[in-house]
Amino acid sequence: MTWSLARKVAVTGIGWTDYSRRSGRSVLGLALEAGQKAIDDAGIAPDRVDGIVNFGLNDTVYPHAVATGLGLRNVRHEVMNQGGGNICVATLAQAAMAIEADMADNVLVFRAMNGRSETRLGGTGRSIEPAPGEAQYTAPVGWMSYPQYIAMMARRYMVKYGATSEDFGHVAATFRAHARSNERAMMREPMTVADHQASRLIADPLRLMDICLESDGACALLVSRADEARDLARKPVYLLAASHGGSARPGYAFDGFFTTDDLADMYAAHIADDLWGKAGLGPAEVDVASVYDCFTYSVLTQLEGFGFCPPGEGGAYVRDGHIALDGGDMPVNPHGGLLSEAYIHGLNGAVEMVSQLRGESGERQVPEAEVALATGFGGTTGSAVVLGV
Amino acid sequence: MTWSLARKVAVTGIGWTDYSRRSGRSVLGLALEAGQKAIDDAGIAPDRVDGIVNFGLNDTVYPHAVATGLGLRNVRHEVMNQGGGNICVATLAQAAMAIEADMADNVLVFRAMNGRSETRLGGTGRSIEPAPGEAQYTAPVGWMSYPQYIAMMARRYMVKYGATSEDFGHVAATFRAHARSNERAMMREPMTVADHQASRLIADPLRLMDICLESDGACALLVSRADEARDLARKPVYLLAASHGGSARPGYAFDGFFTTDDLADMYAAHIADDLWGKAGLGPAEVDVASVYDCFTYSVLTQLEGFGFCPPGEGGAYVRDGHIALDGGDMPVNPHGGLLSEAYIHGLNGAVEMVSQLRGESGERQVPEAEVALATGFGGTTGSAVVLGV
Repeated sequence: MTWSLARKVAVTGIGWTDYSRRSGRSVLGLALEAGQKAIDDAGIAPDRVDGIVNFGLNDTVYPHAVATGLGLRNVRHEVMNQGGGNICVATLAQAAMAIEADMADNVLVFRAMNGRSETRLGGTGRSIEPAPGEAQYTAPVGWMSYPQYIAMMARRYMVKYGATSEDFGHVAATFRAHARSNERAMMREPMTVADHQASRLIADPLRLMDICLESDGACALLVSRADEARDLARKPVYLLAASHGGSARPGYAFDGFFTTDDLADMYAAHIADDLWGKAGLGPAEVDVASVYDCFTYSVLTQLEGFGFCPPGEGGAYVRDGHIALDGGDMPVNPHGGLLSEAYIHGLNGAVEMVSQLRGESGERQVPEAEVALATGFGGTTGSAVVLGV
Repeated sequence: MTWSLARKVAVTGIGWTDYSRRSGRSVLGLALEAGQKAIDDAGIAPDRVDGIVNFGLNDTVYPHAVATGLGLRNVRHEVMNQGGGNICVATLAQAAMAIEADMADNVLVFRAMNGRSETRLGGTGRSIEPAPGEAQYTAPVGWMSYPQYIAMMARRYMVKYGATSEDFGHVAATFRAHARSNERAMMREPMTVADHQASRLIADPLRLMDICLESDGACALLVSRADEARDLARKPVYLLAASHGGSARPGYAFDGFFTTDDLADMYAAHIADDLWGKAGLGPAEVDVASVYDCFTYSVLTQLEGFGFCPPGEGGAYVRDGHIALDGGDMPVNPHGGLLSEAYIHGLNGAVEMVSQLRGESGERQVPEAEVALATGFGGTTGSAVVLGV
């Protein structure tokens, strides 16, 4: 049975700032620019925007500061999620729930961060502590950064399936090739698998080119009640399904390291049936995808988990060119992803999916794209949405 | 027209820890105890608890750490709100939305904090900065704590309506009298209006006895789909309505100071019509209320805003004994509130309302209580729910 909320809400506006290493502006300023652009894109009166949802990790902007800055006088719903990749696209589901519950009609969803010039998430000692007190066990052995955390998952995946660093390199090179035609992308210089292999080890087996960018910037999506969406300026992009979850032995992010039977067991396989069931379609019907690529490795397990290829065959699937814009049958991250466009915590991938479904992605447009997947993860849990026109 | 979600979900379990000045335990440990007690109270299998919602201000516990600790294997929805009093009871509405949207069936809502022994919110320089960069304008003049923030609102209210410090004192004394029969309450020593008047000024016009406690502790509520609620152990307490919002010139909390026309204009009056309309009833039908009393002053404006008495008459209403358990016709904070029970960020008031509607509040029970209001605010915005049996 398809989701009770399927096609009841639509993304009606998108907006983004420049993505850079140093915005030179406050995070609030970034949020206001992206938010205003999404509202302008939808062609909606600010007084009709009555909900705000955002997310971040101890570095975010209060929804009401944005309401004040944009002059949104009728805000009656706000959720400021403390969370990252795991819930990045779940924010779209939260907007849908609020609309369905008559708590809002038009919800502005955004992520704003000075992720390079201010609060860097990538460095040792800068990552958050997911479970209070957990660092007492991890810091003494120097295990205290996202690349280190994910390296253990990547290594386990390699051991289990025979995947190689070259497999990861194909992911990085594919997304870099995509980014070359994306004017928003921070990394547009050519990069080959050999370049990837030559890049230095950061946390074995992860090399520099396996690790996403750190970025300053903001992006936003306006989510509207479907009946209002049809009267707005842009082609509505409907929310077909949303799902969140993780392994049967739960553990948020790195907490999961202590409780998960198999570090190669990522969230995607656990929510795939729920997601496709809600959407009433399967991976074969997906035309384009944004797959959360905080690290190259995570793309492989998500492709497998969501059923685009069998378990352990993600490397071959990528090597064979399936996910490439140029000649692939399942284009992934046409914008370049977190690895080459920018790290706006995964929400920038959802923006690209809307652009693709509207047919507005120019040189990187996937022809006749009608169904898109957008995912996000943070360790052993994650979320995904299916969008469609 | 009443709310589309009215009576679709119910609170089916409540739990709490000791409330103290020094728990001697981790915040996670507190969360686990309160969560387990709520689950036990409902008599539900842990595998049926599939959603977690909590809130906090840079000091909270990740939902998945709680899922791990309690062995909740099927969590498929989580929201960790960055927020405080403004959204404390809105978390119950969030649980309802998730249930209505088929994202969860049973949602554990909790707040855990070592609010006295670790992260104190009350002191100068310890309060959060609601809008990024705002402190550059406020810190240089030493305006940097919650009592200072609220003092300006209280003073404006006094100027506008002629309210007095004694009016505030009646609120404090009433709630202290209530707390005397509450075994959970941290403050049970007798306190009179004269005691209030003799307490020292903290931030003029606010005295020590105008300001809520700082507490260590946790409390939790389990919210369930109504059809499942009827099969669980306890009498279901249904969610009838929920509303959130603020003044027409929005501004989160103290950000509102720079944008609100009148500091005496609090959130309650702005959401009252929406709340009562959704509930299909009015203040006259309310049998008992938890009114967010981070400061005495805020009780008066909320009583007025929600229509229990006309604007400016909150002081007389309290002085005349309406809100007292002993002889009053509209008992407020029978547990003692944030002023005398504990400061668990307002969620402890919702727990008490459930207890009252079940008829389990012992000496402080309001006879035949069938409808309850629970509120929360943070500056110029806030939220409220109506519960009923």
